[in-house]
Amino acid sequence: SGSVMLGVDVGSVDQATLLAYGAWIHRLKMYPYFDTAHYLLVTCEIRDEMSSAAGMFSRKHPLSCWLSTMLMCFADSFLASFLLGEPLITPFKRHDDILLATLIWYLVFYAPFDAIYKMTKITPVKVVLSIMKELKRAHKVAQGVSHAAKLYPHSYLVQILVGTAKGAGTGVVRPIEQFVRGVWMPTHNELLRPSLYTKVCLIASTLLVLEANSPLINAPHDLVYLGMLGFLLYFKLAYLLFHVSEPFAPFENLFCAVAMGGIWDALSRAIAASRERKAANKDTVPLPGEKKEQ
Amino acid sequence: SGSVMLGVDVGSVDQATLLAYGAWIHRLKMYPYFDTAHYLLVTCEIRDEMSSAAGMFSRKHPLSCWLSTMLMCFADSFLASFLLGEPLITPFKRHDDILLATLIWYLVFYAPFDAIYKMTKITPVKVVLSIMKELKRAHKVAQGVSHAAKLYPHSYLVQILVGTAKGAGTGVVRPIEQFVRGVWMPTHNELLRPSLYTKVCLIASTLLVLEANSPLINAPHDLVYLGMLGFLLYFKLAYLLFHVSEPFAPFENLFCAVAMGGIWDALSRAIAASRERKAANKDTVPLPGEKKEQ
Amino acid sequence: SGSVMLGVDVGSVDQATLLAYGAWIHRLKMYPYFDTAHYLLVTCEIRDEMSSAAGMFSRKHPLSCWLSTMLMCFADSFLASFLLGEPLITPFKRHDDILLATLIWYLVFYAPFDAIYKMTKITPVKVVLSIMKELKRAHKVAQGVSHAAKLYPHSYLVQILVGTAKGAGTGVVRPIEQFVRGVWMPTHNELLRPSLYTKVCLIASTLLVLEANSPLINAPHDLVYLGMLGFLLYFKLAYLLFHVSEPFAPFENLFCAVAMGGIWDALSRAIAASRERKAANKDTVPLPGEKKEQ
Repeated sequence: SGSVMLGVDVGSVDQATLLAYGAWIHRLKMYPYFDTAHYLLVTCEIRDEMSSAAGMFSRKHPLSCWLSTMLMCFADSFLASFLLGEPLITPFKRHDDILLATLIWYLVFYAPFDAIYKMTKITPVKVVLSIMKELKRAHKVAQGVSHAAKLYPHSYLVQILVGTAKGAGTGVVRPIEQFVRGVWMPTHNELLRPSLYTKVCLIASTLLVLEANSPLINAPHDLVYLGMLGFLLYFKLAYLLFHVSEPFAPFENLFCAVAMGGIWDALSRAIAASRERKAANKDTVPLPGEKKEQ
Repeated sequence: SGSVMLGVDVGSVDQATLLAYGAWIHRLKMYPYFDTAHYLLVTCEIRDEMSSAAGMFSRKHPLSCWLSTMLMCFADSFLASFLLGEPLITPFKRHDDILLATLIWYLVFYAPFDAIYKMTKITPVKVVLSIMKELKRAHKVAQGVSHAAKLYPHSYLVQILVGTAKGAGTGVVRPIEQFVRGVWMPTHNELLRPSLYTKVCLIASTLLVLEANSPLINAPHDLVYLGMLGFLLYFKLAYLLFHVSEPFAPFENLFCAVAMGGIWDALSRAIAASRERKAANKDTVPLPGEKKEQ
Repeated sequence: SGSVMLGVDVGSVDQATLLAYGAWIHRLKMYPYFDTAHYLLVTCEIRDEMSSAAGMFSRKHPLSCWLSTMLMCFADSFLASFLLGEPLITPFKRHDDILLATLIWYLVFYAPFDAIYKMTKITPVKVVLSIMKELKRAHKVAQGVSHAAKLYPHSYLVQILVGTAKGAGTGVVRPIEQFVRGVWMPTHNELLRPSLYTKVCLIASTLLVLEANSPLINAPHDLVYLGMLGFLLYFKLAYLLFHVSEPFAPFENLFCAVAMGGIWDALSRAIAASRERKAANKDTVPLPGEKKEQ
């Protein structure tokens, strides 16, 4: 069933087993194991971004370091609350989550001999943690879409946006997290160069919204959830194991060439070039020496 | 009745006709024609700001380009929602608006041979679009004031601020829009050098709040609305046709000279100068050579 | 009873008197005298930050100057509303407060001969104003904690955070205030180097939350309030009169050394050093000339 998880040959497994798997995964409790995996990878990412300054920074500015970690661990929640006009402080309501995230932050930055941080860099550990993180991501996307659907049942765009924000909020919140750490890079933001996760979450949210509102997809919800999870895992593992960082590049390039002005630009250039050629031909007859002088 | 629109000789037209006009304009539907004019001018403004980079940027970063256009098209709504603690995502609730704005964005940035963009630069087209945009602006200011008045009936300042935010929100939201495009210019912001539109909207909101709450203005609401619209149109057309960009400058300078410390500064300078002169006179008697050496 | 205010020898005064004092101070009206002291000191702080540019800036950009002053005068309210998802515009609801703050702003920046600004710099005036400001701060911290406790009765962390935000919000709001004035210094923010007030307010909020929710503190509420006020006043006066700017530094250093990786870092360094020494010893035996060449 490992190949099922990768969403490859779904047809060969009978649907009842799949449904059972889907229902089981859909109802999995995130706290504490999946949350731990999520917090661990997010905190390690922050530490990686600080690179060599991490040691000094975490010792000199523990409050800033802690707050930026919390901002990233609960980025999805902050972003979705901000968009929906709900209290931003919501993630701080549940003490369990904050305590767990604080513990992970402490272990990653201050554990003796960097044991925890170094452990997460071992490939098999990283793969397991990443799979768990994608499970949590699928959970958050589904939660975001259903929450927005409750508030705005007919606003499919809002549902897709909130689902994406829940799944890939860290990218959008990163500038604020960097600001808390005293770093400011306005020319690098998620919206300028959307990451793979943002695109994948956008597709996953669209899938869930389509499933709930259109007759196109009439599979059971648990199966769709399983499919979405397989989709997320597929791209994550492709990235981790085979370093496929831009799987959508060919489609994007094609789309940009067709829809985003590529064809018209080429046509304009062709016309401009033919005009220039004509003008150059006309010019060369009366003034043959001019071109060389230029 | 063209002169009526400019709010010049209102007295010469009988009030019943004016009231009928006012009521008709007040109840005009904004969607789709007036919205189109608004979106068109806002999108063209963004493109103008990018200047020569617009072509490259719109091809390389379509998501960032689209999002910054949406931010500016619905800036009034975002800003008012933010101030009033309402969901920021509200503009994305109505699919019609977003689809129309997206269509306009697409046409301005990617239309073959830049047809739409170049068309908006033709003066008569620009004037018609601007008049339509001011109609929409008057609509938004009135809507903002009445919405805030419902929430906070006795807080006139809140009503004025929300009205201004609805009418001239683009200026305040611009830094965020620029950030989405990877541009950051903290030393240029609307609040540092408020634009003409912000000032005009501030006056228009104050007018509407006064009309609703004070016995000073006891004209019918539709007439006041028409007057406000005339006021907005007057300054817009003065700017478009005669390039009057700072009509309030004389009043502002006078106000600053009287109220903002101008008189006291002059007095202080005069006193300081007379003291210096005295000191110089005293000094020159015992030390006549010192002044030359300095 | 001056020593009681400083929270030194509480035991020597009988509890009934203290309780009466506490109740009286707890029920003191903030408007207008204590608010005036708060607005005065905040506005003077903004002016001090502008240093020599204050004169020019306040004359050239009165709107930006006014708005940044309002942002700082009501920073606590803005920050708490933002965190709790309440309307940001709340402080503008009450006209009295805004008018008073605007009057203070006007007097500090534009009063003839800088009379008001210079007056606040006289030490006894400054001490009285500071004591009044601390009274207001105690009031705000208590208000913030009780407001959050009503909304989230079991989320102690939220209560502590809102209390701290109400007491020391200016530090966090400062980057936005600076942005309004066209200043942007991302590498200097409150969270990177928390000020003394932030730390004191954090402790005061924790105290109040503990009092309400744990059996550890079973003194009457008015007495706890008085103690918290004494705590705030103690650090303020120590700073004003004896320039004690980092009273917690020894505790912080000890805490960082014990908990924030200090011990493990020292151990790691010791191990690394001993390894290097061993390696050096090994190296020197077969290759005695190598060290010199390096």
